[in-house]
Amino acid sequence: MKKITKYVIKNSLRRIFLYRVCLNRLKLMGVEKVFSYTLANETGVTPDQVRKDFSEFRIKGNKRGGYNIDDLLVKMESIFHRNKEHNIVLIGMGNMGLALSKYGKFVQRNMNIVATFDIDPFKQKIRSDIPVYSMNRLKEIADRFRVRVAIIAVPEISAQEVADELVRIGIYGIVNFAPVLLKVPKNVVVNNVNLSDELESVIYYVHKMMKTDGQKNLELLYRDMKY
Amino acid sequence: MKKITKYVIKNSLRRIFLYRVCLNRLKLMGVEKVFSYTLANETGVTPDQVRKDFSEFRIKGNKRGGYNIDDLLVKMESIFHRNKEHNIVLIGMGNMGLALSKYGKFVQRNMNIVATFDIDPFKQKIRSDIPVYSMNRLKEIADRFRVRVAIIAVPEISAQEVADELVRIGIYGIVNFAPVLLKVPKNVVVNNVNLSDELESVIYYVHKMMKTDGQKNLELLYRDMKY
Repeated sequence: MKKITKYVIKNSLRRIFLYRVCLNRLKLMGVEKVFSYTLANETGVTPDQVRKDFSEFRIKGNKRGGYNIDDLLVKMESIFHRNKEHNIVLIGMGNMGLALSKYGKFVQRNMNIVATFDIDPFKQKIRSDIPVYSMNRLKEIADRFRVRVAIIAVPEISAQEVADELVRIGIYGIVNFAPVLLKVPKNVVVNNVNLSDELESVIYYVHKMMKTDGQKNLELLYRDMKY
Repeated sequence: MKKITKYVIKNSLRRIFLYRVCLNRLKLMGVEKVFSYTLANETGVTPDQVRKDFSEFRIKGNKRGGYNIDDLLVKMESIFHRNKEHNIVLIGMGNMGLALSKYGKFVQRNMNIVATFDIDPFKQKIRSDIPVYSMNRLKEIADRFRVRVAIIAVPEISAQEVADELVRIGIYGIVNFAPVLLKVPKNVVVNNVNLSDELESVIYYVHKMMKTDGQKNLELLYRDMKY
């Protein structure tokens, strides 16, 4: 029986992404070296946490005199296979799929959406810069570009069917924008991005804060979070 | 000095969202009652975790004979203020902003994007169903609709400037799609949605899995996650 994948991005991995944003900013400012406490201060965690995260992801550095920022960035790039090109397919060319297919930040990180798919490829073709194919060409094109990762941006009603097809043709990683829990085999990673949840959680915290004594309450909420 | 907000959605809150998806699915299937172990099995957590999460968010239920699904859903709706309408403004009408402004799932949860803003409101107006205003009308319109939550979908270079303006006019919650760490006062909640990070983390896990012995390794990764 297929199980629902219990996948979320680890908090330590999220923090590595945060450190990277900071390091890039510091680099732009002309800074060459950084201490763990600087990075901790910039990202709002403890210096111990920074060192622990670095050690978990095997990012080594000479603590005396601080870390060399360029070295850290090179190491992070190799962890995330940034030196390689990653070919990705995108299924579903509605408004969200179209926006994702045009999202420039993916390409900056060597993540290339090489092809998109839709049940009605002709309708969408005019709006897109990337080829839009019909679903029956999925396997052929995914094989040609050695694709292992896919983005699902179809309506929730067809998301499971699309996921099944992706698994069948050899996809091992899915970013799922449809608000459903996909059932996939255990060796497939699903990362659910639920935009309504992201917005609703902010509304939740804002209400909670405004209901009582504002700032103090929000600080309690923060301390409560595993981050 | 302004600090970077250390905000992430709590894992327990993420799980509550998961339970809700399951409950809605079960309800559609005609199911009326559910046990914590059913919900646990469907979402891949332990029954203890389900009960612990329910207790944290003060969702009570008669354990004997299971929880009534309708009762649980009503309670969840009141927690998330679903019975109220929430007015939201969206800043930045590029491709992503446009897709978000047309995203039907927000409205289904009573979250209404009442107005959007762009430095070039005329360019975007033709493509949008929601009014697009220039930034100098932000305060007037946010006040009129009693807006407390905003979505930032502008390029990273202008994100901080937009955030400063939002804080100035009385916004307390921001969902930020720009890949930068915003500096905001402590009483403002920022939830960063970084689409590149979401995709990159899946690539990271897929590579890690394929490099070694597949499934077994992935299971180890899962167990490692705080979820």
